[in-house]
Amino acid sequence: MSYADEVSKRVSKSGGEVALLREIRGRAAGAARGGLRLGIGDDCALLAAKRGEELAVTTDLSIAGRHFRLDWHPAEAVGHRTLARGLSDLAAMGARPVAAFLSLALPRELTTAERGKAWVEGFLDGLLGLAEAHKTPLAGGDLAESPLVVADIVLVGAVPKGQALLRSGARAGDLLYVTGSLGGAAAGLARLAAEKSAFQSDKKHFAGAKAHADFVALVARLKSCPDTKMFTNSLEAQLAAHLYPQPRIRQGIWLRQHGAASAALDLSDGLSTDLAHLCEESGVAAEVEAARLPLDPGATLAQALDGGEDYELLFAAAAGARVPRSIGGVRITQIGRVVKAGRGRAAVTLLTEAGARPLEPGGWEHFS
Amino acid sequence: MSYADEVSKRVSKSGGEVALLREIRGRAAGAARGGLRLGIGDDCALLAAKRGEELAVTTDLSIAGRHFRLDWHPAEAVGHRTLARGLSDLAAMGARPVAAFLSLALPRELTTAERGKAWVEGFLDGLLGLAEAHKTPLAGGDLAESPLVVADIVLVGAVPKGQALLRSGARAGDLLYVTGSLGGAAAGLARLAAEKSAFQSDKKHFAGAKAHADFVALVARLKSCPDTKMFTNSLEAQLAAHLYPQPRIRQGIWLRQHGAASAALDLSDGLSTDLAHLCEESGVAAEVEAARLPLDPGATLAQALDGGEDYELLFAAAAGARVPRSIGGVRITQIGRVVKAGRGRAAVTLLTEAGARPLEPGGWEHFS
Repeated sequence: MSYADEVSKRVSKSGGEVALLREIRGRAAGAARGGLRLGIGDDCALLAAKRGEELAVTTDLSIAGRHFRLDWHPAEAVGHRTLARGLSDLAAMGARPVAAFLSLALPRELTTAERGKAWVEGFLDGLLGLAEAHKTPLAGGDLAESPLVVADIVLVGAVPKGQALLRSGARAGDLLYVTGSLGGAAAGLARLAAEKSAFQSDKKHFAGAKAHADFVALVARLKSCPDTKMFTNSLEAQLAAHLYPQPRIRQGIWLRQHGAASAALDLSDGLSTDLAHLCEESGVAAEVEAARLPLDPGATLAQALDGGEDYELLFAAAAGARVPRSIGGVRITQIGRVVKAGRGRAAVTLLTEAGARPLEPGGWEHFS
Repeated sequence: MSYADEVSKRVSKSGGEVALLREIRGRAAGAARGGLRLGIGDDCALLAAKRGEELAVTTDLSIAGRHFRLDWHPAEAVGHRTLARGLSDLAAMGARPVAAFLSLALPRELTTAERGKAWVEGFLDGLLGLAEAHKTPLAGGDLAESPLVVADIVLVGAVPKGQALLRSGARAGDLLYVTGSLGGAAAGLARLAAEKSAFQSDKKHFAGAKAHADFVALVARLKSCPDTKMFTNSLEAQLAAHLYPQPRIRQGIWLRQHGAASAALDLSDGLSTDLAHLCEESGVAAEVEAARLPLDPGATLAQALDGGEDYELLFAAAAGARVPRSIGGVRITQIGRVVKAGRGRAAVTLLTEAGARPLEPGGWEHFS
């Protein structure tokens, strides 16, 4: 199945869908090609790795009401976040992106009514804008009608054989690092939720409406400013961290090229959960020093530990490894160390001024 | 994101989901590996092509109420059909399967209640059974909760560089062929729909209930007999053609290895629609002889032309090419020829005893 099939099949059915499909094919054709030999239009896309490379593949679902809310998130942010989830998985392996595939299920009204079409346009703007920034062509996918917006993003990347950053390589004695700052996405989501809730309960109040309009305008302004460093205002920076997270492709490739990391993964579920994954796959335990955590300004410790969706990289490196203070303009912070796993010892221990306590995996809560 | 993430994240939430995710990882680990270097458990799977190979990638959505009905289709058939859609795309390119990825959104009750768990078990039996038959490891994917069952299947295959069968290679003078028989899947769906409708309107009638129980038992028997040649009874054969279509991987690889086909695609939407795709991509027109079409016993001409979901291969071959009468036990039938595209000429013309008529792409109707 391909977008091309859907175009012809539905000629007699919905002009809106046909227009959408033609647009996707047209916009995708203009993107950088790299390892993409054959894009949208046949039964499969064809990709070529360079000699000595392996391909990394990941898929991520984004479902309305679970991963985003149509009444909270601008369409551009939904498209951006859909792709960012997949790119971040490539970053965690140190892979360079080769191609993306999008399976998209949409309610009929989003491909017919003008307002719906504007939503889909915005979604594509957000997704393809981030794709272009990372030279990742949209190479194919599928479209279907569904009562619910469901996007499944597939990313294919390439990495020299045997050199991918894995979760399983951390050893006792390694130090633990993160890129960027933590908790910003959770803090931004909390601000968004608070604003939307306040507006819901105060819709008719003039002052509330004015404040809400300002908020909506601020959110709309963010779409063209995906670099969170551009914001001095912490509200803007937090909202941008949640709405337009930046996958750390460049940083992952640097770590892989310099052999600097013994293990890595991306912080999609939150440090407490993701570090537990790393420990489990590596057969080790870890200690995190609360005082060292690079909290986003305005984020709480709980948001940094359990918030999720920061899409920073967490990696381990041998104590003697040379790890720079920043990579590609993004700060690198040592946050703790890898220790031996032991009976009765928690996988992850948090060290605070008050002492040591086990850090249990914190739940990343969906919207429902 | 990976299945492994979801396991830990949800430990405190739903025992059913955890069990499902562990089961998927466990069952997937036992499958043939081939080009799969790293399966479920890290941020991405790692795949390796052989030297000189390209990778073919395709994604296909299967959505409850659109592509199947929970109250009509046995869970095994839904799983089988989900994977068959993707494998058939690989077959159309002449690619050998390397790995499959499954993004699966499920309502909570399907991962908790016993009856729901049985459905998911059946779905996996159907999907992994077909995967094993084609030595295709399940290498990763994603899981999420959703009010609706949505499965997005991703297939990655490998094909020698520059040798993939494309839609765009057909030339005027080529002959057109199909594998197997046509219309069986549509005829099977019609039988299924008729039975389900009759049962709905006659639920309390003893005779109706008995007949329906026999029908359900027959459908249940089919699951372990995916080879349609095994059926002499046309009802069984048609239901099997609809519920357990056989992707023509072996036939696609044969055509590619022997350089026998100038163009190919799979019949997912029906001959009238898919042949129009081939003509469009190749810049040609086509003539089909109705009398030559290998109709499935019991299928009508309309079902063979427009029915869809037969998942046979349609291919063009130069008039002088040696095309065997069967490949791997599946019949090959010449059904028409490729002609020059011309102004005012239909892309596809159907030749019958009554004369020639344009064959418009017939809609493949979803269930909604």
